[in-house]
Amino acid sequence: MTGPSSLLERRARLLGPNVSTFYDEPVHIVKGEGVWLWDADGRKYLDCYNNVPHVGHCNPRVVEAISRQAATLNTHTRYLHEGILEYVERLTGTFDDPLSTAILTCTGSEANDVALRMAEAVTGRRGIIASDFTYHGNTSLVSQLSRSNVPGVGNSDWVRFVPAPDSYRPLGGEAGMAHARAFADAVGEQIEALKKTEHGFAGLILCPFFVNEGFPALPEGWLKPAIDVVRREGGIFIADEVQPGFGRIGSHMWGHQRQAIVPDVVTLGKPMANGHPVGGVVTSPDIMSAFRNSFRYFNTFGGNPVSCAAAMAVLEELEDKDLVSNARAVGDYAQARLRDLAQKYDFIGDTRGSGLIFGAEMVLNPATKEPAIDFTDRVVNEMRRRGIILSKLGRHKNTLKIRPPMPFGTEHADLLFETLDDVLASTPLHHG
Amino acid sequence: MTGPSSLLERRARLLGPNVSTFYDEPVHIVKGEGVWLWDADGRKYLDCYNNVPHVGHCNPRVVEAISRQAATLNTHTRYLHEGILEYVERLTGTFDDPLSTAILTCTGSEANDVALRMAEAVTGRRGIIASDFTYHGNTSLVSQLSRSNVPGVGNSDWVRFVPAPDSYRPLGGEAGMAHARAFADAVGEQIEALKKTEHGFAGLILCPFFVNEGFPALPEGWLKPAIDVVRREGGIFIADEVQPGFGRIGSHMWGHQRQAIVPDVVTLGKPMANGHPVGGVVTSPDIMSAFRNSFRYFNTFGGNPVSCAAAMAVLEELEDKDLVSNARAVGDYAQARLRDLAQKYDFIGDTRGSGLIFGAEMVLNPATKEPAIDFTDRVVNEMRRRGIILSKLGRHKNTLKIRPPMPFGTEHADLLFETLDDVLASTPLHHG
Repeated sequence: MTGPSSLLERRARLLGPNVSTFYDEPVHIVKGEGVWLWDADGRKYLDCYNNVPHVGHCNPRVVEAISRQAATLNTHTRYLHEGILEYVERLTGTFDDPLSTAILTCTGSEANDVALRMAEAVTGRRGIIASDFTYHGNTSLVSQLSRSNVPGVGNSDWVRFVPAPDSYRPLGGEAGMAHARAFADAVGEQIEALKKTEHGFAGLILCPFFVNEGFPALPEGWLKPAIDVVRREGGIFIADEVQPGFGRIGSHMWGHQRQAIVPDVVTLGKPMANGHPVGGVVTSPDIMSAFRNSFRYFNTFGGNPVSCAAAMAVLEELEDKDLVSNARAVGDYAQARLRDLAQKYDFIGDTRGSGLIFGAEMVLNPATKEPAIDFTDRVVNEMRRRGIILSKLGRHKNTLKIRPPMPFGTEHADLLFETLDDVLASTPLHHG
Repeated sequence: MTGPSSLLERRARLLGPNVSTFYDEPVHIVKGEGVWLWDADGRKYLDCYNNVPHVGHCNPRVVEAISRQAATLNTHTRYLHEGILEYVERLTGTFDDPLSTAILTCTGSEANDVALRMAEAVTGRRGIIASDFTYHGNTSLVSQLSRSNVPGVGNSDWVRFVPAPDSYRPLGGEAGMAHARAFADAVGEQIEALKKTEHGFAGLILCPFFVNEGFPALPEGWLKPAIDVVRREGGIFIADEVQPGFGRIGSHMWGHQRQAIVPDVVTLGKPMANGHPVGGVVTSPDIMSAFRNSFRYFNTFGGNPVSCAAAMAVLEELEDKDLVSNARAVGDYAQARLRDLAQKYDFIGDTRGSGLIFGAEMVLNPATKEPAIDFTDRVVNEMRRRGIILSKLGRHKNTLKIRPPMPFGTEHADLLFETLDDVLASTPLHHG
């Protein structure tokens, strides 16, 4: 038996309890191509969710690069190999000065784990500030940056949290730069609090597009006051680009470039090699030297020739197919269609996003902005039943999360919004 | 320019300082096949060192599995997929009861990072004991298990060390079971010390073949007194099988089976998928439940269909080619040849190992056992110049580390030992 219920039973037995799945009826996916997925019954789904297969499921260029290099050589960085050098040269070429050096890891979690040690190497201190509704990864250390996680081995009193920005419900009721200054003040307060501990203040880590927090609409320069405070206090700014990076936001290659900020350290993950396990940390030569002189670090699989070939194929595909421009064009088209839906349905309280990360916030009442949590969940599950893969996120889990592979076109957006319109029209706002 | 000096310059510029390479003259490897490697000048090397390409460099079955699955589907475990279930079922089938569940990660470091949280979930305590000459990985937490590492973010006072066993220079001067009881006493002392701290005692983590420590020759049952102490004190035993596992030691599939011990948690890495980034944690349903109920854990790339296909191909290849038996037979042959060399050369103070992990300890004087550190280094570098890839390890870095891919045959052992004999005969013991 290979039906979903048999698979769920085997999962529980072999993988243990609480291994999360998506949807009330989990999907049994067996095949992918471009923006499409197929389940075991041959049913086709439009993938409007997965960011890991960045240049499309089973992208032929990436598959070919992996297959060719796996058949030629796969080894580690204690031997010399051009693959890692050519990749890091091309990757760092997409960043602003002085971000010109990199460490390659296998996951974004490992990348953030290294970034925290870079902050310590540079500042001699350990206190880190993060947003109160974020996720930066799964190592014992990095998982403590998520307020929703139970602290593990080692204490977590070196982490302090600031309220994540929310453009729909701004801090203090004010949007725009007043909101930005309030955020900077909150960062400053936590710096003061850390300075009173043995840890001191080492740095601030943020997703520069606040994707997990619900990708609030923030004007360019919004982050600058907070980063100014961080630097004035001798800390570093770590930009976690695992979600907004590699051109997803359409307007720029990296989320921090949209904010006209040059971070001290940038961390990379998920989309980097289209699903092949690759992560990375990009920084300046000075910070890299400080880290390399303070900590011993070797990653057996990190930067191996196959991983570098896969990651290089992603950069080549992004450039050859002009996928960042595609993300901008299709994203603009999608946002216009989202706004049309918002005109039609009162329960769409807000629409926002950039490029191929966009969504709508569902509310029970536009005046009170009360989140339509259960409704959003039912919409997501009904979309899955109709063959559209998407999800929800944000503090109230009432924001549709639409984040398709980068080759997503307007014809795919049309299918998505026609189905969504239909589902929104037929799903009762209040559960019967 | 692509010569070694140009590559070293580019490495320093792009990857930063202190990125380690092997050998005085680093090797620029471009191609691999089975137990062979080729450099950029077309020179062929016999690989007597690399354990990551476990079933041979570019093993066709593994390459085919990766290529096929990468072209079909690569996604994450929040959808249902048979790949991870079939793999975990087959993998756990090689372990003793009750080790029947697994978490798949991308690296051995991530696996050990999870294992420490399992110890905490089960015991409610955090204090860990490790050997004083080991390495368990590179996350900020796990790197603190190596005494040679600088502690990073978070304090490391939850780690205590016990002297690693040394069969050539046994603790208290006694080999065998007296040595085992002395080791157990040392573990007991550190448990008492941890119990006096806020951390308490959670567990002991060891490589059951003590590979980094120089793979001492220990009789079956040697570890039992120490594990008995651990369990009596309510702690768990974590066996790090990253190096001895997957049949390398020839006598058993897993290092702990040679010690007739069933660990509470087993961690896996390097050889698991022949270089594709895969690691894992195998444990009992009870410990898995405790972990899954205490900590949130999701690993984006962990257990993806391509990783599982690669890992499954390794298990299939091990079985189809009977590579564990090969490791035993070739290992026995190699040890006999090593003993012949020890008869011939006084400076070989000890020979030891099991299966395809073996080596010889070099001393300046067999009576005093003074380590021949510089000599060993010169031998390793001269072997590289003669086309044989091997290394050195142990507390004094005076033990040859010979750990070839599993398809290593007696004909390869012949070439290794003929060359080694020649190099030992022509390398002066004291540097001119």
